[in-house]
This record gives sequence, structure tokens and C-alpha cells, in this order.
Amino acid sequence: MIIIGEKINGTLKKTAQAIAERDAAFINSLAARQAAAGADYIDVNAGTGGGNETTDLLWLIDIVQEAVNVPLCLDSANPAALKAGMAAVSQTPMVNSISGEARRLEGILPLVAEKESPVIALLLDDAGIPENLEGRLKIGRLLMENTRSAGIPDSRVFIDPLAMAVSTKTEGAVVAIDSMKILREEYPEVKFSVGLSNISFGLPGRTLINQAFLAQLLAAGLDAAIINPMEQGLINMLYATEMILGRDRFCRNYTTAFRKGRIEL
Amino acid sequence: MIIIGEKINGTLKKTAQAIAERDAAFINSLAARQAAAGADYIDVNAGTGGGNETTDLLWLIDIVQEAVNVPLCLDSANPAALKAGMAAVSQTPMVNSISGEARRLEGILPLVAEKESPVIALLLDDAGIPENLEGRLKIGRLLMENTRSAGIPDSRVFIDPLAMAVSTKTEGAVVAIDSMKILREEYPEVKFSVGLSNISFGLPGRTLINQAFLAQLLAAGLDAAIINPMEQGLINMLYATEMILGRDRFCRNYTTAFRKGRIEL
Repeated sequence: MIIIGEKINGTLKKTAQAIAERDAAFINSLAARQAAAGADYIDVNAGTGGGNETTDLLWLIDIVQEAVNVPLCLDSANPAALKAGMAAVSQTPMVNSISGEARRLEGILPLVAEKESPVIALLLDDAGIPENLEGRLKIGRLLMENTRSAGIPDSRVFIDPLAMAVSTKTEGAVVAIDSMKILREEYPEVKFSVGLSNISFGLPGRTLINQAFLAQLLAAGLDAAIINPMEQGLINMLYATEMILGRDRFCRNYTTAFRKGRIEL
Repeated sequence: MIIIGEKINGTLKKTAQAIAERDAAFINSLAARQAAAGADYIDVNAGTGGGNETTDLLWLIDIVQEAVNVPLCLDSANPAALKAGMAAVSQTPMVNSISGEARRLEGILPLVAEKESPVIALLLDDAGIPENLEGRLKIGRLLMENTRSAGIPDSRVFIDPLAMAVSTKTEGAVVAIDSMKILREEYPEVKFSVGLSNISFGLPGRTLINQAFLAQLLAAGLDAAIINPMEQGLINMLYATEMILGRDRFCRNYTTAFRKGRIEL
């Protein structure tokens, strides 16, 4: 599974402060620690504070690229910021994200097609996140129609079904998982990514809930996840679940991870 | 999910010793701690050491019934021992177990039918445990034919698909889970129970693996599990997974368990 490190995110208070103060050491450390913990991509989100998103994003990109040799996941709803970011990166980035919102489809899809970037596609549109399965599927199909029209192969699209917090919606995880299962049937080449931690918002024991959700997502065929790779319980559950699902021949990945301290109880 | 406490088992060294020495305090404590940790049934297995299984089982039953007000799960392959045990219990016990082995079917089924006990049915026969899915299904169907002929309603039968250790068989968990899914389709009223811990035999981090397996079993519709209820990680995963699967309206079970210290991180 592709791990996208979530920590450099301007909507988080500490990162926002580091961006405002141009605290390069803070960002550098967050990037380095996530890469060391196994992040395959580092998400960079400059937030929207102060209206300097593009400038802030370019600053973040410079710091992170200097810190680690890991590709970036450029995280913005703003086509201009993404365009500037895509011109500044040294390795093909993942783009996070398009959605069923007209502005994002029109502004971002051509960039993604041109740069041959993998792209995350959120199951929401101008009316917000549909609560039920049928609403999600409708947006998923619309997105696939659009990515195909833009010439983007299905295998470069990572659908994020968007999990609503179970504290506010009992079926929050189920709707996300069922969306994945059905869209995977309809689009066998498409990939799936989930921003994991929202599921546990507002509840105690968040990392336990995140682990339980990850286990079910992996069974449904998750390809990537936006997580905190320093959340040790998630990494443990990832290896153990892949093994349980019969995807770890002779338990080699699991036992190696254990020996190298990558799994830690 | 029904929790069957696994600790009073004469094939485990310490329990065997306690049985041999008639150490009632040891057995009493194991029973009390499992009940306090949430066991719905206490499994009692007298082992086969010394050929006194029936006497030993009756001794265990007395101690456990004095210690706790929880029904027993009488665990033996020996029809005579089970018959004596079923006559000695004060609450309807679960019977563990029948299988496709002729001796157990003939000896145990009539007892189960007469006493209206729930019964665990193992997917093995005189040739052993089939490695592949088709072999398991064949035994499952044979077992159901037999329980139905004996007049036992499907809803009192708990099929145990038997998980082989993933360390020796990469598909060990998958075969068990797939057996469950298919037999559940064929017999909608039948229940499923799994002896959980064998899956992780021979590997480090056993409780992590057991948790990952439990998460997948619950998604496949597990009704009961033979576990160590003091294994806190399993109890945590049980509550979190039920919530993720949309079975915990308003997260009430999860948050209550958290508040009462039943979930503990």
C-alpha cells in the first residue's frame, strides 16, 4: 500500500504557524520523520491562511525537497497553486485533488493530464459530500467520465470515497467501503486512496478506530492512504492485515518488518 | 459476539498441572478472571493426560460452576466425557465439538439433540483438516446434513472453519474466511465460531495478528470466538470493528466500553 504522509498540512495549527513564521526546521523535520517512517509520498498543503497559498506552497515544496528524496503529494483545491507547484517539483507528484466540483474539474484535470500525474478524486461535488451510497457512486461515475475524456488512464486515478466520522454517522465507514467495492467492480483499473483519520473524529481511542478502519479498507482493496506514518499502530495493522489477507507469501514482509523494528508493539 | 474463554484447557501446560495436582484455586481464578473480562462461556477442556478425562472434566466443571455464574463450553472429542459433563452442568452448555469424524458424529450428535445444546462443528474429518476451500465446504455440508437429520436447528450449530497458522500456510486465514462466507450463503441461519489464536502460531506479535484476523472474521459475520478475554487488544478491536462495520448505533457500545475501562489502550 502507498503511504502518503499527512503531517505537513496548513490546516493543522502547528504547521500553519510554521508556515507563517517560515520555520524551515519544523517542516524539514516533519518531512524527514515521515520519510523515515515509510512515507512513499509527502503531502504538502499550504492551507489558505492569508491568501498566499501559492507562495506558501512553493516555500513548502522547496523545504521538503531539500529534506527528503520522496515525491510530493500536492494538496490544494486551487488550480493556480497546483499549477505553480507542479512546475516546481523535481519528481512527478501526486495531485490531491479533483472532485465533482466544476471549478476543480476544469482547472485541475488538464494539468494532471499534461504532467501524467496520479490524481486523487474525491467523491464530493458542488452540493457537498453525499451521505448515501448512491450519491457517492454518481459522483464517482461522473469523475471517471471526466478523467477518461481528459485522456487520463484509470490506473492513474485514486478515488477517495471520503469517510464521514462514525461519531456523526454510524454508517460512515460502511458507505466509504461499499463505494470502493462497487466502483472497483465497475472500473477494475482504478485505484483507491483514503484520508484515514477523519473516521475517528470526536471519539476517544482514535488510533484504535483508525486501525479497525484500515483493516476493512485493505480487505476492500485499498491502494493508498493518507495517514500519519508515525502512528505505529497503523503500520502494525497494515503488515498484519496484508498477511491475514493472504498477500504476504511465507510471511516474509511481516517477519522482516518485525525484525527491522518497523512493526513495534 | 459471543466470547468463549479459552484458558481452562488441559492441553496447556499450566492447566494440565493444575488438573493433575487438583489445584482448585488456580482453576477458580482462571474462571473468575475470564468471566470478569467478559467471557459469555467458559471453555473447559480436561486434556487427555492419564486417561482420566471424564473424572478430570467433572472436577473442572464443579470448580468453575462454583467460581462463576457463566455457562460452560464442554470441550472434548470424547462422547463419554461429554455425556457425563452434560449431566453435571447447571446451565445449558455449549458443546465443543463435533466434526466430520464418524466417531464424534455418532457419539455426540444424539446428546446435543437431546439436551438442545448449541454445538461447535469443526471442518475436519477422519482424513484431517482439508487445506483447500472445497474440502472444507464438503465437510461443512456433510455436517449440516447430519445436524439436520438429528433434528438440530441450524441456528444452534456454530461452524468453526478452522484457521491454519499463516506461518505454515499463507492462505490459512483466507480459506477460513471464505469458508464462512460461502457456508453462510448456503445456510443463512447457521452460526460461526473460530478458535482464534492458532492463526498466529510460530510468529512474533501474536496478539497483533489475532486482532487483524478478528477484524476480518467480524466482517464475514463471526458470531462467537474462542479467545483469551484478558487479551486486551482483542477486546479493543472487537468494539472498534463492530463500530466501523456500522453495527454500533451512535457509537454507544464503543463509548460505553471506553468509559467503563473495557476498552483500554
